[in-house]
Amino acid sequence: MRLKAIISYDGSGFSGYQVQPEKRTVQQELERVLCIMHKGDIVKVIGSGRTDAGVHATGQVIHFDSPLTIPMDNWRTALNVQLPGDIRISSVEQIRNDFHARYDATGKTYRYIWSLNEVHSPFERNYSVHVDRYKPNVELMKEASLYLLGTHDFSSFCASNTSVKDFVRTVHSIKFEMKKESNQVHMVINGNGFLYNMVRIIAGTLWEIAIGQKSVGELRGILESCDRSKAGKTAPAHGLYLEKVEYKP
Amino acid sequence: MRLKAIISYDGSGFSGYQVQPEKRTVQQELERVLCIMHKGDIVKVIGSGRTDAGVHATGQVIHFDSPLTIPMDNWRTALNVQLPGDIRISSVEQIRNDFHARYDATGKTYRYIWSLNEVHSPFERNYSVHVDRYKPNVELMKEASLYLLGTHDFSSFCASNTSVKDFVRTVHSIKFEMKKESNQVHMVINGNGFLYNMVRIIAGTLWEIAIGQKSVGELRGILESCDRSKAGKTAPAHGLYLEKVEYKP
Repeated sequence: MRLKAIISYDGSGFSGYQVQPEKRTVQQELERVLCIMHKGDIVKVIGSGRTDAGVHATGQVIHFDSPLTIPMDNWRTALNVQLPGDIRISSVEQIRNDFHARYDATGKTYRYIWSLNEVHSPFERNYSVHVDRYKPNVELMKEASLYLLGTHDFSSFCASNTSVKDFVRTVHSIKFEMKKESNQVHMVINGNGFLYNMVRIIAGTLWEIAIGQKSVGELRGILESCDRSKAGKTAPAHGLYLEKVEYKP
Repeated sequence: MRLKAIISYDGSGFSGYQVQPEKRTVQQELERVLCIMHKGDIVKVIGSGRTDAGVHATGQVIHFDSPLTIPMDNWRTALNVQLPGDIRISSVEQIRNDFHARYDATGKTYRYIWSLNEVHSPFERNYSVHVDRYKPNVELMKEASLYLLGTHDFSSFCASNTSVKDFVRTVHSIKFEMKKESNQVHMVINGNGFLYNMVRIIAGTLWEIAIGQKSVGELRGILESCDRSKAGKTAPAHGLYLEKVEYKP
């Protein structure tokens, strides 16, 4: 039986999503708990994609196979009871046996959070990026973001250490939200898929435009150059959230 | 020169406020940073009171003396640059030389947070207490809380391992807030001072009333008994915030 689960995690305590030797990762914790539930049998967990160390998720999707006959309603609790508190299972459902969390994903939504407070609250320090020294012009970010919409070669917005060959991706939307109460700026980006560090490099580049270090017009040239060195800095991991993964109905 | 500062801290990583040998505490971090700023001289930091391991603060008050001639506007930044991110200085001001953060405090406000979500968000796990198995009746908590208002011997609501002799305190107000968006219940309590664990024992006892384990009427007897064993369990530390300390103007 194949199971699909939506999970959230606080990335602060993990060396990213994917298993790495001697490191604490989300996948490793999930597989450890499933192994206990399956009395020592190894259960491989497939995620919709990796997230880096420090990156959070509110809607990561995974799948795994299990022969257990646990009632579907009990799966979530059974997993959450054993998992550490920084990973939570939001929902579990049975799914067709050829469903694949990674290959079947048709779209993803990420959120990036900047905090503009003078003093960065200790309760927010791992969950948003502190940028108090600047007064960002969000209208400029919005304007610049229009260049990124649609289908492009996003080589300029991909970390150089990647094995990917195809750099063409489609960005469907980039929205900005001003959160007055918490004094935060949120960027919400949706696309059919993202290259390694792509959201963080987009966030970093748009931020440089917002604070006047780059002009709106430069963005077109950056995109067309297909040269990572032309884009802005990679924005820090702890401002980033994987919010939603879409699949064909 | 005497300085008064308002500070916030995420209690998760601390063994409480007060210095203890070989433990990481808020006071120890503050004194460590002040010692660096004073080129090795020891600077004693006095807080308005201790907070236990795991307890948070958004408005703890401290005082210390310094001969440094740093412009007042720069003190906050000078401290925050050196402090770890889980302690932040919100404000620093010069104050009369006989001001005492502890002895001059005339009142304190604490907040206690329960989270009613089915799944406890990984981002909230250290910042609210998860109580999903129950449907609390907040009206019953409100009704019961009226017994606690005013001046009473609060022995029943004081941890037994205390050296205090006078158990009489005055509670000025206990308010409840329902946070619909986050599905939380907040209790905000203000008084002239609180005994060791008093807020957590009040929170724990009112919670037992909210979920029907104790009746509203029992609270009067609990208070009058002056017997800690009659009250409810001590509510967990990580739901508690020291929000404000008041001083005579």
